[in-house]
Amino acid sequence: MKLLIEKNVLLESLTNVMRAISPRNIIPILNGVMFNLTDDGLYLTASDSDLTIRNFIPKSKIKNISETGKIIIQSKYLLEIIRKLPNTDINIEVIDGLKIIISTENTVYNLNCLDTEDYPNISLDEVEKPIVINSKDLKQVINQTLFAVSTQESRPLLTGINFKLNGNILECVATDSYRLAKKTLTLNETYESYNVVIPGKNINELDKLLTDDSTVEIHLFDNKVLFKYEEYLFQSSLLSGTYPNTNNFIPDDFEIIITTSLNDYYAAIDRAALLTQNKDKNIIKMDTDKNDLTITSSSSEIGKSEETVTINKNTDKNISISFSAKYMLDALKTFEEDELIILLNGDSKPIILKSATDESLIQLILPIKTY
Amino acid sequence: MKLLIEKNVLLESLTNVMRAISPRNIIPILNGVMFNLTDDGLYLTASDSDLTIRNFIPKSKIKNISETGKIIIQSKYLLEIIRKLPNTDINIEVIDGLKIIISTENTVYNLNCLDTEDYPNISLDEVEKPIVINSKDLKQVINQTLFAVSTQESRPLLTGINFKLNGNILECVATDSYRLAKKTLTLNETYESYNVVIPGKNINELDKLLTDDSTVEIHLFDNKVLFKYEEYLFQSSLLSGTYPNTNNFIPDDFEIIITTSLNDYYAAIDRAALLTQNKDKNIIKMDTDKNDLTITSSSSEIGKSEETVTINKNTDKNISISFSAKYMLDALKTFEEDELIILLNGDSKPIILKSATDESLIQLILPIKTY
Repeated sequence: MKLLIEKNVLLESLTNVMRAISPRNIIPILNGVMFNLTDDGLYLTASDSDLTIRNFIPKSKIKNISETGKIIIQSKYLLEIIRKLPNTDINIEVIDGLKIIISTENTVYNLNCLDTEDYPNISLDEVEKPIVINSKDLKQVINQTLFAVSTQESRPLLTGINFKLNGNILECVATDSYRLAKKTLTLNETYESYNVVIPGKNINELDKLLTDDSTVEIHLFDNKVLFKYEEYLFQSSLLSGTYPNTNNFIPDDFEIIITTSLNDYYAAIDRAALLTQNKDKNIIKMDTDKNDLTITSSSSEIGKSEETVTINKNTDKNISISFSAKYMLDALKTFEEDELIILLNGDSKPIILKSATDESLIQLILPIKTY
Repeated sequence: MKLLIEKNVLLESLTNVMRAISPRNIIPILNGVMFNLTDDGLYLTASDSDLTIRNFIPKSKIKNISETGKIIIQSKYLLEIIRKLPNTDINIEVIDGLKIIISTENTVYNLNCLDTEDYPNISLDEVEKPIVINSKDLKQVINQTLFAVSTQESRPLLTGINFKLNGNILECVATDSYRLAKKTLTLNETYESYNVVIPGKNINELDKLLTDDSTVEIHLFDNKVLFKYEEYLFQSSLLSGTYPNTNNFIPDDFEIIITTSLNDYYAAIDRAALLTQNKDKNIIKMDTDKNDLTITSSSSEIGKSEETVTINKNTDKNISISFSAKYMLDALKTFEEDELIILLNGDSKPIILKSATDESLIQLILPIKTY
């Protein structure tokens, strides 16, 4: 294998492909990046067996292909080495079978390689009719739901995002059983039904990859999913099991409907969160009184705080309810419009958040009983 | 105590004064900030007994002084509370003796305070003829020497910077016994002689305070030093003991004098540092051959690297010498001019670095013997 390639072309590709390499991986060969140079261009592949990312650099973006071939380069320091090279063309050449020379005018790196025969055989399969979605829409779905997945390995299914497709309606749900985020997207075409759970940690890497306004193809299988985006293939395993049916969690009717400014409400919660008794749960209290909403928090050590926010309310009924300030801030961050709707049914029932103009996003937070 | 003050005036002052509060402090009263409101203005003081910072906000910068008085406010969360308030005027009012209300239109914080009688009596003294130095010059001295102080508490004196004043010459030295940084400044006036050691961690806080181009007065005592800068008083303890005489460490004559580009040399060391056998010491090797300087490094696991830099040399003699890449990079960062001079006397003698145009700065690094 021998080629000449511009530093920044290689750096961008490597940065993205190496997102698949897990720092906790203990299988030596999976710490390597596969370079496969063909007459058409260079394929870079990295995998932690649960997640595989492949990028294709077409020959039009390569300065010179002298000799095709395959090699696995150890990924440790590889990204830093390429990043610190001057902005120029880089020579890459395999010598003695298992050594690679990466060089520019004044710099020569001689790196140990691994045998391609030891690399697992990973098939990146495609379906006939993939789901097509705009990359910005997919990125928004991720940002509005991913934060709510569970970090507890004791309930593995909840560490993923549930993607449910019916006709042209894609419903994405994440919950850790104390809060829930749900986003609904209407697709341009109709597809057969799917109900899968994709690991949150892999979705997090996919999010970093989606930087341009382009389209993403989603190729779904029983046990894996392939995302096709520009010259990248991104394949993740699926979590097995049946995701809880979350539709029943969200009530249809509400006793108290509050409308307020998202920014004012966010700032009040943000300040109140500073003084909370239990730092893990960040419990704060919200009380309504006519058109005033009051947020109170306290810490026996430091003191207490009180915030007032102006609201509109559909009823004379008032409420006093406690919840986690951290969970509320996480949920509020997903809304883009300034008018926020808070839907309530008593102090032990879920708090539902919506935007006034966009029905596609629902955030749910369970209250916390304080005595 | 009762006053009305613009948020950003208070925030800037608090941010700087609170640099004196140590996160490791275990004396409760020293976790507080003293607010002392007089008819002339507001004095804010914080201290960890080793370092004290006081700022004066004159009445011209305060919106309203309703009632003078003193109080100690717990510093935990205080900065975050003020930072998160809207950009407006803030009411501060002591109630019930040991509680303080910090409020704006929609926000009320009610914070616990501490008794001023428990606060240690700290005298911030001045001498008749302080040393006067430009704040940018002092900041440069700090940035060119502070990194070289020792972090080992086993030799406490080496954790400080040695300030030695003779006539109008101020010499500042820091060393951890493996490397040494020395900067000489010529002052505008002549002063009596001093030889003191100021704790590095306090100097580090002073550095953050010096943001404007202004003058600093240095008031030196036997056991403490007071820096006066704008409306700030910054008082540090001194380290006791006799600092080693470091003048003998730096030779006058050199066998090999190398001139090269600082940027090229820095980039070569920076890249070579990635692949080093012993990650703690970051050992790399430098060899000269006529007008070529070669930097090599290796890691049995990853591979090896070779960098070539063009140099001028005063002699046909060549050298092969090993040293810590981390120490070399730290030292190189202190130079501003592009032409670097490397002075050598054999592979077991100190490596001296200078700039071609500025004699005031000397960096020394001990070589590391490799077999």
